[in-house]
Amino acid sequence: MNAVPTVDMWFEFASSYSYLAVMRAEAAARDAGVALRWRPFLLGPVFMSLGWNDSPFNIYPPKGRYMWRDMARLARKYEIPFRLPSQFPRNGLLAARVACLGQDEAWIGRFARAVMQANFGEDRDIGERAVIADLLTRLDLPAEALLAAATTDTAKAALRRQTEEATTRGLFGAPSFVVGDELFWGNDRLEDALAWATAPA
Amino acid sequence: MNAVPTVDMWFEFASSYSYLAVMRAEAAARDAGVALRWRPFLLGPVFMSLGWNDSPFNIYPPKGRYMWRDMARLARKYEIPFRLPSQFPRNGLLAARVACLGQDEAWIGRFARAVMQANFGEDRDIGERAVIADLLTRLDLPAEALLAAATTDTAKAALRRQTEEATTRGLFGAPSFVVGDELFWGNDRLEDALAWATAPA
Repeated sequence: MNAVPTVDMWFEFASSYSYLAVMRAEAAARDAGVALRWRPFLLGPVFMSLGWNDSPFNIYPPKGRYMWRDMARLARKYEIPFRLPSQFPRNGLLAARVACLGQDEAWIGRFARAVMQANFGEDRDIGERAVIADLLTRLDLPAEALLAAATTDTAKAALRRQTEEATTRGLFGAPSFVVGDELFWGNDRLEDALAWATAPA
Repeated sequence: MNAVPTVDMWFEFASSYSYLAVMRAEAAARDAGVALRWRPFLLGPVFMSLGWNDSPFNIYPPKGRYMWRDMARLARKYEIPFRLPSQFPRNGLLAARVACLGQDEAWIGRFARAVMQANFGEDRDIGERAVIADLLTRLDLPAEALLAAATTDTAKAALRRQTEEATTRGLFGAPSFVVGDELFWGNDRLEDALAWATAPA
């Protein structure tokens, strides 16, 4: 029995390059005949384990200046909306808890894209509960019920466990793609990860 | 009068991803109708200015582990030889001085590829004078004369100035590609840089 080729996409709502991957991944996976699994996690603890108490794009200004220019160029190339956020990184905790709750649900792609586009395309504060509630409502999802479920101790622990799993798997940034034991880092590697998943063993 | 589309490739002989770009750049530029200018520099001073006293691939082990796996995959994809170097990073100073001397000469591409392949394809110590002499000789270049010229005060100052220019231009890693004021970082951006150089203004 052949398993369906599968790629796990690990992403963080505060991460700029995760935005590009999240906007492209579902269509690219469909075109490649690959099942996409959404794996939201928090970069903060991962960065802390590397000795960074902020985004490396803030810690190293030349990297940060370059990243924003690169983002603008790539967004244009992919025809994805982009507006320089007035705050970076934003707090992706609540959005990640909701996404973790729904990561295997049919609405996960739509929700992830809506949050990402709010952050990097519309300069909205995704750290605010009201913004996440608004996005859920516009997707015809039960905002209050999901937000209540996402902030239970069980839901909090699920995201914490998933973030720990990211570190265990050797992740050090986002987006990252995992195919079996193979790790691919960065929006630039989405296509390589999809190709790896469908290549003959 | 239209200028010939030109891309400056900034590279460092000790840099793993520079290897991939150096091996590919001349053919890719020719296919794109772009003039390629070779710009060797030293990453050490650039990393020092960012607070790193070693390669970030050594400072951050998960990044390093990933990089070597990524290198092996990409080398196979590009059909470029790859052997895990027994020492990383190697000292690229002498090779960079020779390359700086010859950066606008016809032999620069052949020399750069020979040094890079020795380091990352054959596990040879490019920090040794005898290795650089051997590579020059195999390219039918006057090894002793070039090595003597590359170690004059003038030649040393030229590489130092070029490395300072890299920082001034906002470079923070290698390889980097510069098209006018546009900076592209990483082997992954070679094709984007070539496309930028030939795009209508």
